[in-house]
Amino acid sequence: MNRRRTGRRPGESDTREAILASARRRFAEQGYDGATIRAIAGDAGVDPALVHHFFATKENLFVASMRLPFGPGDVLPPLAYVERDRLGEALARAALGMWEVPEVQDTMLGVLRSAFSNEQAARMLREFVTQAVVSRLAGIAGGPDPEVRASLAASQIVGIAVVRYLVRIEPIASVSVDELVAAIGPTLQRYLTGELRT
Amino acid sequence: MNRRRTGRRPGESDTREAILASARRRFAEQGYDGATIRAIAGDAGVDPALVHHFFATKENLFVASMRLPFGPGDVLPPLAYVERDRLGEALARAALGMWEVPEVQDTMLGVLRSAFSNEQAARMLREFVTQAVVSRLAGIAGGPDPEVRASLAASQIVGIAVVRYLVRIEPIASVSVDELVAAIGPTLQRYLTGELRT
Repeated sequence: MNRRRTGRRPGESDTREAILASARRRFAEQGYDGATIRAIAGDAGVDPALVHHFFATKENLFVASMRLPFGPGDVLPPLAYVERDRLGEALARAALGMWEVPEVQDTMLGVLRSAFSNEQAARMLREFVTQAVVSRLAGIAGGPDPEVRASLAASQIVGIAVVRYLVRIEPIASVSVDELVAAIGPTLQRYLTGELRT
Repeated sequence: MNRRRTGRRPGESDTREAILASARRRFAEQGYDGATIRAIAGDAGVDPALVHHFFATKENLFVASMRLPFGPGDVLPPLAYVERDRLGEALARAALGMWEVPEVQDTMLGVLRSAFSNEQAARMLREFVTQAVVSRLAGIAGGPDPEVRASLAASQIVGIAVVRYLVRIEPIASVSVDELVAAIGPTLQRYLTGELRT
């Protein structure tokens, strides 16, 4: 962080903030799929190449615009290198690991709350989750219907997020992360790699 | 329905509506636990015995005040009579069966939306789910920590509700109920009766 900060030219941080503000507006208005880096750059009065230079991908730009310190692109790709039979446990730990970081939790609760009350925000979340979470999980799932598997895994993670962090239903709001990983890990393992039609 | 309607005395339906309006206000302001039948009756200007006569229990009154045609008290108790090894499947089918009824879905989405955006509504939902769903499921769960088991099962059902009906993430928003029952039934079965710490 410090390195990056001192490495910035004067005015760079203002430019970056202007891009993020444009991104937030475009994502909210046009959804994740509809908002283009070109349009966001245009709104911020900068060249699209500069947006690519700062954020590399639309996904990174979205994550930064949500003020998240990291996103699915940091947490999910390493799962491709996990032993197949520990995938569920690793995903449970990765997902809960994100949610347990207070600033991530606050931001993600805000994103969920907006999505639950506002159709435009729901569309933005739906498109982002489809691209950044479901597609990625489908890529590491085994067996037929990888997208069904991925969205089932997402449903269990979202359910924990809602029950534990948002509505705070006991005792699940208070059990330890380890206990929760032991409980939902095998669920995620089966959704991603097991038999779904019995 | 018809029988009950013709059995009502003139003015009975106005009294019933007045009780339901008082109930909605009290539940919203004081939560499910805090609102008493006595206070609700007082607000509606009727004797508490009349509230008991119309609705029998606070839970029924809550379900009626949410304009739900039926509630957890109708759907969950029969699970006690299901073969142990088909409990997960039966719960999946019962829960999805509720959510697939359009008027139930609309109402429950409204309840979820309020709970997600407003702490008072979240408290009301939390207390109701704890009393009417988690306690009941804990009563039919096997093994240690029945409340943890019950709240894990609730988390998977809530997750499906949010991903399928509220945010509508594909492909889970479009798969058939049978496919979904086959997918989440074994999850609920393990949460309620299986080994949770591996």
